[in-house]
Amino acid sequence: MLTQNDVDQARRRAAEMLAAAGIVLTPEERTAIEIADFGLGDLERSGLELVVYENNDRYCAKELVLFPRQTCPEHRHPPVGDDPGKRETFRCRQGTVWLYVEGEPTGPIRARIPEGDEAHYTVFHEVELRPGEQYTIPPNTKHWFQAGDEGAIVSEFSSTSRDELDIFTDPRIQRVPDSG
Amino acid sequence: MLTQNDVDQARRRAAEMLAAAGIVLTPEERTAIEIADFGLGDLERSGLELVVYENNDRYCAKELVLFPRQTCPEHRHPPVGDDPGKRETFRCRQGTVWLYVEGEPTGPIRARIPEGDEAHYTVFHEVELRPGEQYTIPPNTKHWFQAGDEGAIVSEFSSTSRDELDIFTDPRIQRVPDSG
Repeated sequence: MLTQNDVDQARRRAAEMLAAAGIVLTPEERTAIEIADFGLGDLERSGLELVVYENNDRYCAKELVLFPRQTCPEHRHPPVGDDPGKRETFRCRQGTVWLYVEGEPTGPIRARIPEGDEAHYTVFHEVELRPGEQYTIPPNTKHWFQAGDEGAIVSEFSSTSRDELDIFTDPRIQRVPDSG
Repeated sequence: MLTQNDVDQARRRAAEMLAAAGIVLTPEERTAIEIADFGLGDLERSGLELVVYENNDRYCAKELVLFPRQTCPEHRHPPVGDDPGKRETFRCRQGTVWLYVEGEPTGPIRARIPEGDEAHYTVFHEVELRPGEQYTIPPNTKHWFQAGDEGAIVSEFSSTSRDELDIFTDPRIQRVPDSG
């Protein structure tokens, strides 16, 4: 489990990467950067740092920060009631991101699947995103992504975000820890 | 009316401002920057430069560029069918923006209303946005905005954008010119 010190350190690192990319946060936003280790306890390898700018019942906008070679594990955003599931557009701002979605595998992948977790990665249609490039992921579609050696910053524009409903391929993962 | 030369020049200028702020566009995006003079033929004074990253039936994301003291005239996004009207979040990335919305006037305004157009500006609740600051405008709410002396860049996150339905206070304005 992450200690408060781990969280503070990851927040500082993410804030520095954002600042270096010219992305300005308020002091309140800097101290509230979300550090997600997906309950795997190995943040550097499997994790994501997020700034949620806005999330309402119509749309959502976030900044995603990935440390070098950090991976956001495979998951999908399922339908909820009348909502067909979250649709999301990833726009790369800095660094390189390899995004994997459902569809024909594209050949040898450039990301490195976290060792020991191979069983939990099942989609291999690769999309490389460099700064200025973007890709829209349809609702309820499995996807995962990893930054290149420099780390990456990705702007996410989407329909309403309900992280607690995300379905991960790895059954050990809980996106939002139970409180209490 | 804007000549092709005016449009090309405004595109170059907007692209330079975005690049200076560290915002990367693809070559295709640079040549497709939307130059809106709202049919008033005085772009430097009343106008807006836009990059539309994504606009689908659920959400929309744009980058707005304002030249120094350039004004986006007062308008609202009306309801359409089941849609209560566009809700939008403005996040300032660079420069200063003064945004005016419905509500109690806040005192002497810091923007300068384009001379001769005073009759078409009716809401004076001022919100100043500097880099990292943001404000969400409810649907169907009159608003207008102006950049400070350095110009400004604003990220807009919103529900679906239907610019052609915007209702401007100034009856001369047509947001999207008739084709043909």
